[in-house]
Amino acid sequence: MIAKAAIITIGDELLIGQVVDTNSAFIAQELNAIGIEVAYRIAVGDNKPAITNALDQAIETVQVVCITGGLGPTADDITKPLMCQYFGGKMIVNEQVLQHVKNIFQKLNRPLLDVNLKQAEVPDCCQVLFNQRGTAPGMLFKKANTHFFCMPGVPHEMKGLMQEAVIPFLIKEYADGFVMHETILTAGLGESFLAEQIKDIEANLPITIKLAYLPNYGLVRLRLTSTGAKEKEVEIKTNLLHYKNLIVERLKENVVALKDIGMAEVVGKLLVEKNKTVATAESCTAGNIAYSLCLIPGASEYFLGAVVAYSYEAKQNILGVQQQTLLKQGAVSEACVIEMLKGAIAVNNTDYGIAVSGIMGPGGGLPDKPVGTVWIAVGSATKQSTQLVQFRFDRLKNIELTTQYALNNLRKFILEENSN
Amino acid sequence: MIAKAAIITIGDELLIGQVVDTNSAFIAQELNAIGIEVAYRIAVGDNKPAITNALDQAIETVQVVCITGGLGPTADDITKPLMCQYFGGKMIVNEQVLQHVKNIFQKLNRPLLDVNLKQAEVPDCCQVLFNQRGTAPGMLFKKANTHFFCMPGVPHEMKGLMQEAVIPFLIKEYADGFVMHETILTAGLGESFLAEQIKDIEANLPITIKLAYLPNYGLVRLRLTSTGAKEKEVEIKTNLLHYKNLIVERLKENVVALKDIGMAEVVGKLLVEKNKTVATAESCTAGNIAYSLCLIPGASEYFLGAVVAYSYEAKQNILGVQQQTLLKQGAVSEACVIEMLKGAIAVNNTDYGIAVSGIMGPGGGLPDKPVGTVWIAVGSATKQSTQLVQFRFDRLKNIELTTQYALNNLRKFILEENSN
Repeated sequence: MIAKAAIITIGDELLIGQVVDTNSAFIAQELNAIGIEVAYRIAVGDNKPAITNALDQAIETVQVVCITGGLGPTADDITKPLMCQYFGGKMIVNEQVLQHVKNIFQKLNRPLLDVNLKQAEVPDCCQVLFNQRGTAPGMLFKKANTHFFCMPGVPHEMKGLMQEAVIPFLIKEYADGFVMHETILTAGLGESFLAEQIKDIEANLPITIKLAYLPNYGLVRLRLTSTGAKEKEVEIKTNLLHYKNLIVERLKENVVALKDIGMAEVVGKLLVEKNKTVATAESCTAGNIAYSLCLIPGASEYFLGAVVAYSYEAKQNILGVQQQTLLKQGAVSEACVIEMLKGAIAVNNTDYGIAVSGIMGPGGGLPDKPVGTVWIAVGSATKQSTQLVQFRFDRLKNIELTTQYALNNLRKFILEENSN
Repeated sequence: MIAKAAIITIGDELLIGQVVDTNSAFIAQELNAIGIEVAYRIAVGDNKPAITNALDQAIETVQVVCITGGLGPTADDITKPLMCQYFGGKMIVNEQVLQHVKNIFQKLNRPLLDVNLKQAEVPDCCQVLFNQRGTAPGMLFKKANTHFFCMPGVPHEMKGLMQEAVIPFLIKEYADGFVMHETILTAGLGESFLAEQIKDIEANLPITIKLAYLPNYGLVRLRLTSTGAKEKEVEIKTNLLHYKNLIVERLKENVVALKDIGMAEVVGKLLVEKNKTVATAESCTAGNIAYSLCLIPGASEYFLGAVVAYSYEAKQNILGVQQQTLLKQGAVSEACVIEMLKGAIAVNNTDYGIAVSGIMGPGGGLPDKPVGTVWIAVGSATKQSTQLVQFRFDRLKNIELTTQYALNNLRKFILEENSN
């Protein structure tokens, strides 16, 4: 049997929308990777009846519960005393945690407050999960057949506890089933067109394999999922890869990658493989293309620099765009992005470049260049490829789409150049 | 009575952690703004029993349910037929939606597939919420005293439907209570130190006012919340503002803003107010400071450009950093960030600049400059202020923290310069 899990995130801020919950996605990934299926995720406020209900519901339906939030030192954090009462314990001081809290404050050279000392108190009915990244300890409770893991809501503290305490514990306890995913990253076709192209393959998928379409900023991920008993792992894997290959062969050049990575990582790997470098010249994307490339560790191997040139002055001074081009054809023009591209390659001395210029909105639209008009150029000092696109979304989405299109265009340019 | 709401997000991708759910936060914000309190959020898979359970649970506890996801045209999208069955209807073609789908495909010059035509089918027991941004229509169902709003999971389509259909409907139906939030943005003090400073104020808060501490990348938001009946709005508001002012007076220079905005927006407003411009020179943050500034609509008024200089070459060629500085003191040094700052101001011809250089990890650490070492410079052509910081997190968090610190340093520099 595959163990099932629930994720409970606690905090009023989740219910008023003040923060976006990224913890749940991380926890879900980690659990899935070791074969534990997440049945549901629920977010509740810092509110006793709501938290208690969520715990009651979890006991009835799942074997693993990951809980985050409400462990801080301030008065709105009620998770710890509530868990203590729910599992019938009393609060005691944990000496290891106390010493750890004292050390942290000594290192920071800050006075230790009473409220910080309270972080060292834990229910006597739990197993403490030591949190080396912060002052709030993690806790493990058990009731009936369900394990409850309490972690702080601070993302890097939660991640540390998941990787160092929760996952190792769960592997020991529940490593008898597994979930397997295979992902295909595609570009250039919408969800329904992809579905039409692989209709017959999808119709013939065995019942044990699920196919999902995950569209995101001009890309669509196709995800095949299979679950099963540990002893059938080889068989299930072979089967899953068989159907993955059928889809990949059918979709041909729309396939960008055979695993769940982003477009920036695909381009980064290609550059490393070809031993080439890149620079960007950006106007409307404001550095987002450079930032996307640099988020990948090791990016400094192939990414050398970017120029974000919002003003005419910066376009001329740094990138060497001709004044005539700006005055006659405007900053949002094919001629301008080609000059920007050549400028970025020249000042950074790279093999390739990406240049974009456009109008992202909400203001700034012109009669012949409405909001969403973007010119994209990719290429080398001697050869360029350009594209005019017209997006029709809000500022943030237009920027993200431009970033994905530009990276994909460079990917295609490099592949074509190398196929000739 | 204040209407209570639940948010149900549907999709296997939410349970394996492949995507981060940003829809829930947006929906929660919109509901809160019109006085509807979100009781909980739940995410379930594309799975009939799980969705049905979530609907059953919602009927018993809330009056408003916002549902997203599973309305796409592919086989894994089961929400529409399930809702049809749950509310006891049958599927019929909606002529307005059909025409709209045909128009979209004509405009895109793409063939219309059977699967797309199915988007025009809706349960006869729902009110159609017209979705002008996509092919999947929104739907409104009613059962007992609960309204169910079904929306696509694509963020900009969901947002459009919320603002144009859901919120106007709810205002008519439930505008008898309200929730009020007041937020104070602080920098420079951790959660527990803030709590210690305002301990007495917090202890004396009336029971109707809740105070929450929301830490995020070096900043802490303090949020005061009050709920009540519509007719007591003035009284509640006065009371909330009274306690907000007490806290603001106590925390003095740690207060960055009196509303829920980000640091980039605070800096942007300050630049507009002083009629000044800024440029950035970034190494380790890879354009993230520029990008943060540019996400604010209207940023082109004060943001003129950025140079992301990863290589020595770019630092020298574009920013005019001296080769001697790089060789003797290294790229991560006070001398280098000052030269980068001056270079950014010169090539972009701005009043102010921000420059950062550091080692974000995971690789690249040196014995005397470990991962997380960052030099930050802010200032003008004639006067600069620098700071050496040592972060100890992962790449992404180090980049975000550097961005917040750098923006806050510029904010303080501008305020100080103007107070002299």
